[in-house]
Amino acid sequence: MSIIEPADPTARVREQVLSLLGGAELGPDGRLPTERELSERFHVGRRFVRRALDQLEAEGLVWRRQGKGTFAGQPSDPTGALAAQITGETNALQVMEARLCIEPELAALCAQRSLPEEVARMRVIADRLEQAADPQSIEIWDGALHRMIARCARNKPLMTAFALLDEIRANPEWVAMRARARSRASREVSANEHATLIDAIEARSADAARSAMRDHLTTRFSALRAELADHPLSDG
Amino acid sequence: MSIIEPADPTARVREQVLSLLGGAELGPDGRLPTERELSERFHVGRRFVRRALDQLEAEGLVWRRQGKGTFAGQPSDPTGALAAQITGETNALQVMEARLCIEPELAALCAQRSLPEEVARMRVIADRLEQAADPQSIEIWDGALHRMIARCARNKPLMTAFALLDEIRANPEWVAMRARARSRASREVSANEHATLIDAIEARSADAARSAMRDHLTTRFSALRAELADHPLSDG
Repeated sequence: MSIIEPADPTARVREQVLSLLGGAELGPDGRLPTERELSERFHVGRRFVRRALDQLEAEGLVWRRQGKGTFAGQPSDPTGALAAQITGETNALQVMEARLCIEPELAALCAQRSLPEEVARMRVIADRLEQAADPQSIEIWDGALHRMIARCARNKPLMTAFALLDEIRANPEWVAMRARARSRASREVSANEHATLIDAIEARSADAARSAMRDHLTTRFSALRAELADHPLSDG
Repeated sequence: MSIIEPADPTARVREQVLSLLGGAELGPDGRLPTERELSERFHVGRRFVRRALDQLEAEGLVWRRQGKGTFAGQPSDPTGALAAQITGETNALQVMEARLCIEPELAALCAQRSLPEEVARMRVIADRLEQAADPQSIEIWDGALHRMIARCARNKPLMTAFALLDEIRANPEWVAMRARARSRASREVSANEHATLIDAIEARSADAARSAMRDHLTTRFSALRAELADHPLSDG
């Protein structure tokens, strides 16, 4: 343990937690170690851990659930029972169709309604996504970005429909399929598409945001279709 | 009670039940009298009542729920708990936005996937709607037509999103608002719009069906906006 404490322990812990967020040390649901574990690991008082997590939460990089802990990314909405019921009655193609129906419109509404600080959070999350090194963190940050856009559309029924799709997509077999599909697509193309989308949102252009989301999903679905053709899912 | 039994009691009961479906004798949720009540009322054996209801069910004019009875129109999907949770967090404008996002796409998918007998059912339901004489039956048949189209799109997640909106819309205050808004709009315009929509579906033209649904909803929403401007809802 170091004798000299840095001038701002909160800033140091923030950086250390940030480095955890990119890696494979997170739990399967993106859960971080507890505050106590972080405090012991980084040799710093719990109040500094708490402040660092507060900052990261404000930046949209982590979220907390009472009694459950702190998680990387953005929370999903509670549509669990319904999603579970639907999962067995749908397939990957239907979910793609549904996303292509809902997400471009969410992006258009987001362009009209998001606040500057929300756009700033989208950029931070997109940076995280670009730096993500393993399939699990890519999945977390990619999901967090799309969820952030959906939430900023400020339409509760559409947000719920999005959350439902999001939960259906959390099916482990589908997550594995997406990871394989991603290896076919260029990370750079995807990053450029996300940047174009966030630019359109920042410019408050609903039409440009709608097109950018549609183009981005179309690219993704081509890779998914190719992957499904080679490795069909049991329900696909 | 007549002495001479008609050659086909089933056909007679079918006509009699059909006349009930247009009127105000239905329960608030569109529930028909029980089979026993119908049998006593029409002085005919229960097996004829059952056969007549079977026919009407096949035509898409009634549906049955085990242990609950027979209802006019088309069933809604079981999204109750989630819809109840959302209702307080949304408003009429958000629901309009969400319908305008989802229903045109459902109409387009329906044009690609509906079977000829399903299109025939849509025409039968549209006829019922045209003949409906009171606000409650208009609500039932209008809802049944939109639900039928949504179901024929054969996309479970989008159908669930539609069902969620449908349940939110069942809020009594909103039902009353729609009844007032309908008195502003021409029944004839609405009937023509529905006919154009079903024609496009029958012609298997996804683009025409999408546009027809968008135009129809846009007409409806103008009337709703005018109504909301004059009589704002508590949550609107």
